Amino acid sequence: MLRAERGPADIRPVRIIPNYNKYAEGSALIEMGDTRIICTASVDDKVPPFLKGTGKGWVTAEYGMIPRATEARGIREAVKGRPGGRTLEIQRLIGRSLRAVVDLEALGERTIIVDCDVLQADGGTRTASITGGFVALVYALEWLRNEGVIPFLPVTDFVAAISVGRVGADLLLDLSFAEDSQAGVDLNVVMTGSGRLVEVQGTGEEETFSREELDAMLDLATKGITRLIEKQREALGNLATFIGGISFEADSGGNHQPREA
Amino acid sequence: MLRAERGPADIRPVRIIPNYNKYAEGSALIEMGDTRIICTASVDDKVPPFLKGTGKGWVTAEYGMIPRATEARGIREAVKGRPGGRTLEIQRLIGRSLRAVVDLEALGERTIIVDCDVLQADGGTRTASITGGFVALVYALEWLRNEGVIPFLPVTDFVAAISVGRVGADLLLDLSFAEDSQAGVDLNVVMTGSGRLVEVQGTGEEETFSREELDAMLDLATKGITRLIEKQREALGNLATFIGGISFEADSGGNHQPREA
Amino acid sequence: MLRAERGPADIRPVRIIPNYNKYAEGSALIEMGDTRIICTASVDDKVPPFLKGTGKGWVTAEYGMIPRATEARGIREAVKGRPGGRTLEIQRLIGRSLRAVVDLEALGERTIIVDCDVLQADGGTRTASITGGFVALVYALEWLRNEGVIPFLPVTDFVAAISVGRVGADLLLDLSFAEDSQAGVDLNVVMTGSGRLVEVQGTGEEETFSREELDAMLDLATKGITRLIEKQREALGNLATFIGGISFEADSGGNHQPREA
Amino acid sequence: MLRAERGPADIRPVRIIPNYNKYAEGSALIEMGDTRIICTASVDDKVPPFLKGTGKGWVTAEYGMIPRATEARGIREAVKGRPGGRTLEIQRLIGRSLRAVVDLEALGERTIIVDCDVLQADGGTRTASITGGFVALVYALEWLRNEGVIPFLPVTDFVAAISVGRVGADLLLDLSFAEDSQAGVDLNVVMTGSGRLVEVQGTGEEETFSREELDAMLDLATKGITRLIEKQREALGNLATFIGGISFEADSGGNHQPREA
Amino acid sequence: MLRAERGPADIRPVRIIPNYNKYAEGSALIEMGDTRIICTASVDDKVPPFLKGTGKGWVTAEYGMIPRATEARGIREAVKGRPGGRTLEIQRLIGRSLRAVVDLEALGERTIIVDCDVLQADGGTRTASITGGFVALVYALEWLRNEGVIPFLPVTDFVAAISVGRVGADLLLDLSFAEDSQAGVDLNVVMTGSGRLVEVQGTGEEETFSREELDAMLDLATKGITRLIEKQREALGNLATFIGGISFEADSGGNHQPREA
Amino acid sequence: MLRAERGPADIRPVRIIPNYNKYAEGSALIEMGDTRIICTASVDDKVPPFLKGTGKGWVTAEYGMIPRATEARGIREAVKGRPGGRTLEIQRLIGRSLRAVVDLEALGERTIIVDCDVLQADGGTRTASITGGFVALVYALEWLRNEGVIPFLPVTDFVAAISVGRVGADLLLDLSFAEDSQAGVDLNVVMTGSGRLVEVQGTGEEETFSREELDAMLDLATKGITRLIEKQREALGNLATFIGGISFEADSGGNHQPREA
Repeated sequence: MLRAERGPADIRPVRIIPNYNKYAEGSALIEMGDTRIICTASVDDKVPPFLKGTGKGWVTAEYGMIPRATEARGIREAVKGRPGGRTLEIQRLIGRSLRAVVDLEALGERTIIVDCDVLQADGGTRTASITGGFVALVYALEWLRNEGVIPFLPVTDFVAAISVGRVGADLLLDLSFAEDSQAGVDLNVVMTGSGRLVEVQGTGEEETFSREELDAMLDLATKGITRLIEKQREALGNLATFIGGISFEADSGGNHQPREA
Repeated sequence: MLRAERGPADIRPVRIIPNYNKYAEGSALIEMGDTRIICTASVDDKVPPFLKGTGKGWVTAEYGMIPRATEARGIREAVKGRPGGRTLEIQRLIGRSLRAVVDLEALGERTIIVDCDVLQADGGTRTASITGGFVALVYALEWLRNEGVIPFLPVTDFVAAISVGRVGADLLLDLSFAEDSQAGVDLNVVMTGSGRLVEVQGTGEEETFSREELDAMLDLATKGITRLIEKQREALGNLATFIGGISFEADSGGNHQPREA
Repeated sequence: MLRAERGPADIRPVRIIPNYNKYAEGSALIEMGDTRIICTASVDDKVPPFLKGTGKGWVTAEYGMIPRATEARGIREAVKGRPGGRTLEIQRLIGRSLRAVVDLEALGERTIIVDCDVLQADGGTRTASITGGFVALVYALEWLRNEGVIPFLPVTDFVAAISVGRVGADLLLDLSFAEDSQAGVDLNVVMTGSGRLVEVQGTGEEETFSREELDAMLDLATKGITRLIEKQREALGNLATFIGGISFEADSGGNHQPREA
Repeated sequence: MLRAERGPADIRPVRIIPNYNKYAEGSALIEMGDTRIICTASVDDKVPPFLKGTGKGWVTAEYGMIPRATEARGIREAVKGRPGGRTLEIQRLIGRSLRAVVDLEALGERTIIVDCDVLQADGGTRTASITGGFVALVYALEWLRNEGVIPFLPVTDFVAAISVGRVGADLLLDLSFAEDSQAGVDLNVVMTGSGRLVEVQGTGEEETFSREELDAMLDLATKGITRLIEKQREALGNLATFIGGISFEADSGGNHQPREA
Repeated sequence: MLRAERGPADIRPVRIIPNYNKYAEGSALIEMGDTRIICTASVDDKVPPFLKGTGKGWVTAEYGMIPRATEARGIREAVKGRPGGRTLEIQRLIGRSLRAVVDLEALGERTIIVDCDVLQADGGTRTASITGGFVALVYALEWLRNEGVIPFLPVTDFVAAISVGRVGADLLLDLSFAEDSQAGVDLNVVMTGSGRLVEVQGTGEEETFSREELDAMLDLATKGITRLIEKQREALGNLATFIGGISFEADSGGNHQPREA
Repeated sequence: MLRAERGPADIRPVRIIPNYNKYAEGSALIEMGDTRIICTASVDDKVPPFLKGTGKGWVTAEYGMIPRATEARGIREAVKGRPGGRTLEIQRLIGRSLRAVVDLEALGERTIIVDCDVLQADGGTRTASITGGFVALVYALEWLRNEGVIPFLPVTDFVAAISVGRVGADLLLDLSFAEDSQAGVDLNVVMTGSGRLVEVQGTGEEETFSREELDAMLDLATKGITRLIEKQREALGNLATFIGGISFEADSGGNHQPREA
């Protein structure tokens, strides 16, 4: 039988330690089970070429593993000489996911680089990077606000991510590495605090799945993400109240409101 | 107004010319609107290290563009020095999609490499690569069967792919490049001939989407893929009858053998 | 006996389809026997550093093959990570050959990049790239003239190229891949419409040749190039009349201006 | 005045947490002041080519930093594409230092790879990597002994390292990053538990130093290293008693065997 | 007026110092005017893959420049990270030229690598590399013969190379760098001791040339090469008598054996 | 017994030929025994980014070997694609050593690049590069002074380098390659003309050394460096008198100006 220690719809123990790094404008250490990732958010005054002169900012992500983050030691990134396909795919996913909840115009022409460095990998590193990266990002944006660079926290909603998989006939939430290795269908879901989808990546590796299974997996993911956002709230403390369209006076014109200093 | 020349649920004109290349074991030129791609399928007697000694085969894909496939001339791949993140992501998608309908054990320890070289890109190159690559792949497998290397055509089903997008409030099937540039949500769907999902990649770029929209987009995709599989059938001619679990009588003239379910 | 289907001094069937690509300023698909190459000519507003501020333009070429252009599948350029020695040698040859018939001062400070992408290779790809690339180049220059950027077509002559080889004791014009593999001496000749030499590259691979043989091979090449320039004239249609030092009357309908000798 | 909080001959607070990583055969997290490094020691069954067939083993090291380990975010190693000169120099230093106290013949034909990944850098990362790497290495060797692969712990002595610098006229032990930036002379010393030198690297950057200053700096280093070895002893617990040439009786409970001198 | 100090048909002063390097099996320093190149010939027991098991050997060449070999300091090869197009073209030329006079079957399955490192470049480095590389090669082959690895010196003829150029209307032999910069047509000729052609590379850079000019340039080249082969004879001393198909008596003192035609 | 031909405290025969290269602003060929290195010093009008706008100059070094500088042919740098760790370590050492005796403020915002290309390596190439590179550097600085770019020779002292090693129990000065291969401890010392240390790099490879041995090795090094500086004086001739803080009267014939302390 699968998963003696937790139910199919349970996520693993989650811990988020904010401000783990002394240099980064924002940072967090996230642990989901034995998966452990340092997320740092760094402010850069430049934007990519396609945004120059637009007044708009950018959020991008980079992802890496230390060599012994995994069961078998991997080749060091500097030796491989370039990020592999999997790494590039993950980086693009993290970046897109975080941008979905940032008001890039309010951010102004600057870039936040979110680095996700995996110290120990036991499944779900890409989704944990999004969940932890969000916390680091919010702290970096708060740093900018505190410095007086931007007038309010330009974060429109929470965002978190989780995996669901089909192992044999079972649908399981938040796969560990051992479970992921057995899964024939793998779904990564990125969702906002208000339940809207940012990313749905369902993949059959030598297997296929039905529309009904897709629906059931999305239901499981929604449950997990709700729990993760609670953890993000705890890690953000008072900052959580300034995220999204929640604690501000509704005005008719726009939904962005300056944040109380 | 959008799409004067076709309805939101219409795909562009499709043309598939099989055996376009004289050297490849299988090949096809696919055109979807102004998108034009050469797909070749090459047989290699080796398998990746993780399959050595397992008796199982592999299908992999590579994707590229000639420099002037696009409006603005791109840097030549050999000069860039390595495939970019987008290229690697597409290659992995094509490979997974094609493997989902190949009986890798029946293929035996060999690899089919499907090259998708884009001569002209006007949107949907990754999905057209899957649709055209499938035809090239089947011809290469038939070549192996004809050579007596494998006893039957190890193809369990058709597979094709299409994009759907949300432009403003409209859901549109089979986006051209111009439409894709305006889309806030982009969904790529890979589906088999029997309607099962292989891959669902829904992505919001600075926008989000609801569960209801996801459902409506999947409906549109199903319609488009049904049409594409008709085109694949035409391009495969008699070979189409040997695909999938349809039982058939061994006829005296051909060497096709029924596959055990 | 060699070459049952054509005489030693015959070239293979040639087809040049102009404007094959919808994005490039000029383009042509050239087929010589089973050799098939897409040539595109792209206009770039920059020049190499050594020409900055000189008022002079540049023509450069890039050359590549799709992986299954050849009998055995080649490694994709983006994976090899850099153009090989043979590729660089060919690119430099094509560039020099085309520059020999362009009035670079009349072109002004801009670069025409001629991309030659081989879809199918059956010998003579470097010479066919020059012959087809010339047609693409002329169309791109006409585009510039038509846009009003340059006052007349800055092309001083036709240019085409062909190979000759010594197989055993026989001298053969326009070698196919199979013939080239057997050749002990290989001569590539680039010649203008007025019969002047641009490039003569005679190479013995583990064999040598005499001055008399060099002369006989140059005679054969002259014959082949004359035929190729006829084909270029057909592909260029009316544009052919504006090439070279042929004086002409400025006609009211067009903007072509005679070029001072 | 320099160093209000500690004397010129004092080292910063040191913490070594052994077995920080769940996958590595040996590991330690070392903190010296705000410098924080994960050291993992991985066993590999291969040796470099020059040792094949000699019966001798090898110890090698790799060193890296996560991008935001430093005040200013650094370029990710995988993007830089190769280890820089400073990184290679450090790796070679760590490797040589650790090999000096390992009985490579007793280790047998296998390699221990010590990875030092800097999570936060505040000066002295190369010396802290040696000090922490030693602890990780000993645990990995104990793992090998415990598995029965090797009969005894092949460690002949402790080894640790520290920096000394000249800032203005002052000689300071264990430089922080801020102090190191002001230093005109920098000395790294690697020393064994019995006080023998493994490595002395004294460097003037646009300054020089006298023989007398070299002597005084070596005295300071000896003091610091003595303190570091105490910390290593604590982190190794009972294992510390099996290091070096100290003869001992084989006790019934453990499998440790005395090593012949 | 051009060339006050020598006539248009004169070569520059030539000096060839054999055995300049203590490690290489064969070596020579060649100076032509201010061009100065070290040629070393190294014996390697392997052959390229396409020759494995054929019993045939190979001769290959590599070419490089030290950074300040030229008027303006060049980027170091190790920094550029790969040989440029010009370098690869030259290497292929040197290799082909030397192979033309070596009996590769008599050499047996081994490779001679001829390295040509330019210490000072003043024009004609590719041709001087061939002329000097031949001397290094013969010494390396003699070393093999002397070691008893091969029964006789497998060299069928001398080979040397020279450039000719058209500067304005003048045809000039053996161009210096200053002359080469002004030349509109450049011809490199590689010729054997018996006057047969190995390579003819005539190139117009933005200029063209007639058949008559080609003939006149070939005449000049023949004159220069005759003079260079005299210099090679001097540098080879007694070894020169064993080159080529000239039959000879086995003398008692040496082990040279005549080669069957 | 070791070293029949010279005593343990003797250096090998040294020869320094200044101005060996016709293009470089300064150059020298240095031979120490069979080690032979071309050093060129090139003036560049730029400085590294961290010096821009400071008014200060820079001295940097690059180091390389031709492939057959060593007993076994090495892979060409351009093929390896990047400088190895050893090369980068040596380059940094040479650069630091030379900067220690140059008044970078007097040099002004320009860089001197010292290239050290090893033609033949028989031990001590890094130290000989420093000793020979100093001569090349001084000539390049004199060239700048002579051109009127700088008012006086900005060289504050001589600098030279030598190795000492422990082979068995013997301490030997100036190791040849054969001796270096046997050495268990290796010390490189860089020292100025006034006897101050610039760099001390003592390294045990699988061996350790005592404080007393370090002292004895430093004594030997001092003796060797004294001898090398005599050789530098000879190679610099009259220029030697303008090095260092020795005050002097402005003489009418030369333009040398005393430097303020």
